[in-house]
Amino acid sequence: MIEIANPEEMQETIIGLKKSGKRIGVVPTMGYLHEGHRALIRDARKENELVVLTIFVNPAQFGQGEDFDRYPRDIERDRQAAIDEQVDYIFHPSIGDMYPEGYATYVDVENITETLEGEWRPGHFRGVTTIVLKLFQITQPDNAYFGQKDAQQLMVIKKMVSDLHIPVKIKRVPTVREKDGLALSSRNVYLSPGERQQAAVLYRALQRAEVDIRRGERSRDIIVGMIRDMIKAVGNISIDYVEIVDPVTFRKVQFLENNREHCIALAVRIGKVRLIDNIFV
Amino acid sequence: MIEIANPEEMQETIIGLKKSGKRIGVVPTMGYLHEGHRALIRDARKENELVVLTIFVNPAQFGQGEDFDRYPRDIERDRQAAIDEQVDYIFHPSIGDMYPEGYATYVDVENITETLEGEWRPGHFRGVTTIVLKLFQITQPDNAYFGQKDAQQLMVIKKMVSDLHIPVKIKRVPTVREKDGLALSSRNVYLSPGERQQAAVLYRALQRAEVDIRRGERSRDIIVGMIRDMIKAVGNISIDYVEIVDPVTFRKVQFLENNREHCIALAVRIGKVRLIDNIFV
Repeated sequence: MIEIANPEEMQETIIGLKKSGKRIGVVPTMGYLHEGHRALIRDARKENELVVLTIFVNPAQFGQGEDFDRYPRDIERDRQAAIDEQVDYIFHPSIGDMYPEGYATYVDVENITETLEGEWRPGHFRGVTTIVLKLFQITQPDNAYFGQKDAQQLMVIKKMVSDLHIPVKIKRVPTVREKDGLALSSRNVYLSPGERQQAAVLYRALQRAEVDIRRGERSRDIIVGMIRDMIKAVGNISIDYVEIVDPVTFRKVQFLENNREHCIALAVRIGKVRLIDNIFV
Repeated sequence: MIEIANPEEMQETIIGLKKSGKRIGVVPTMGYLHEGHRALIRDARKENELVVLTIFVNPAQFGQGEDFDRYPRDIERDRQAAIDEQVDYIFHPSIGDMYPEGYATYVDVENITETLEGEWRPGHFRGVTTIVLKLFQITQPDNAYFGQKDAQQLMVIKKMVSDLHIPVKIKRVPTVREKDGLALSSRNVYLSPGERQQAAVLYRALQRAEVDIRRGERSRDIIVGMIRDMIKAVGNISIDYVEIVDPVTFRKVQFLENNREHCIALAVRIGKVRLIDNIFV
């Protein structure tokens, strides 16, 4: 495994490798790898001759007062995970290399970024699309792997890629969960043991919604109300949103249609930790 | 020469050609080719194995009330010019292919886009950077050629390319002028014979400024005042701006420094036709 920090060096290396016809799979992450990331890497490993793992905690996607400074980092452990999963290259640039003084260029995807995470984290998706476009230019992937857990992010990136004709396939990888259903997240490490137990309610509520829908429930208000009640019953969890949306446009849905997929997405705060989750139904 | 209208087809063709190691030079234009465009193509022809000419009148870079509808078009003549100059591929997509329904992604370069053309044509550079990024993704150039006449555009694109790590070299090609000094522009065709003659004052005034600076003049106000007076003396020309700026940041300069390059840029309207010009001093 080779580690590269310099963007130009990474780009030149990749351009050289592409000439030999190797397919390149890229897994963009903010590091502090867990089983969810490993699932992305494993899919990349299966479908490409070369796997590049990028590790960069991207300041542009964190808002004022968010957890950029205390976002967990452990490059030593990440390095070992990358070796275990047979990653070929780790790209982990410095902030100064990615956003040098005078940096001025940003990518905006309109509409789909206006709901849910876009409403609660203004500027977040602008930071995401900008860094992902930069990483794609540097690492020139044939395939790039993103987790279903960040469902809206995944669709925002798909929209950007399609609108800008970026020659990469975006691959969606299912959410990996703990035994009690909690979606894996680097931020879970900051939950106290009590909070960690409470957090299991999120997936329980989503699963209950799935059952209700299978039994015929079609009203957004009733489904969302049920989820909110289940979460509130646990106490100590503050809800940012619970919403049912179209899984492509992320527009809010008032009544579920038969024979169409919907995404139920939520975001909550447990203590200082913000968690998101979703299911497709 | 091969003509391609479909973005996916163009992109696949290029990706195939790149694997054979050919350097690709791209000349992005809005068509209605003149000698200035031909100079771009000739430079591209010298420095690359493959030359792609793109022709697309980009609605996103025209504001409300600007001349998108009456921008001159003549694909037949452009085709002949491309053959003359040994272009390998013409890419001329439809508006629907470049901006399909639901299109939502835009690229913004901050700061440098706030002065001169950015002030007078709000949203113009957003349209330029977005289409150029799209064209770069589709045609994957090693080198791309832009005219010095659109000096600010050129620096905005350079800034975007550098910020986003796009693997392309931006080549600046000197402005081509008529015998009386008027910078070639597709829009010149709309000048009446009288206006056409009056338009020559722009370059005369810029040259006079150059002489004044060589003789020691350092004050922006005096140089700009002189240029404005010369233009006004001709009558019938309305001035959008005359400005002296840093040639990289396009920030306005009040006093010229020795041993530094400056750009004197202007924009005027003669009748219904908007013209720009600049020199580097």
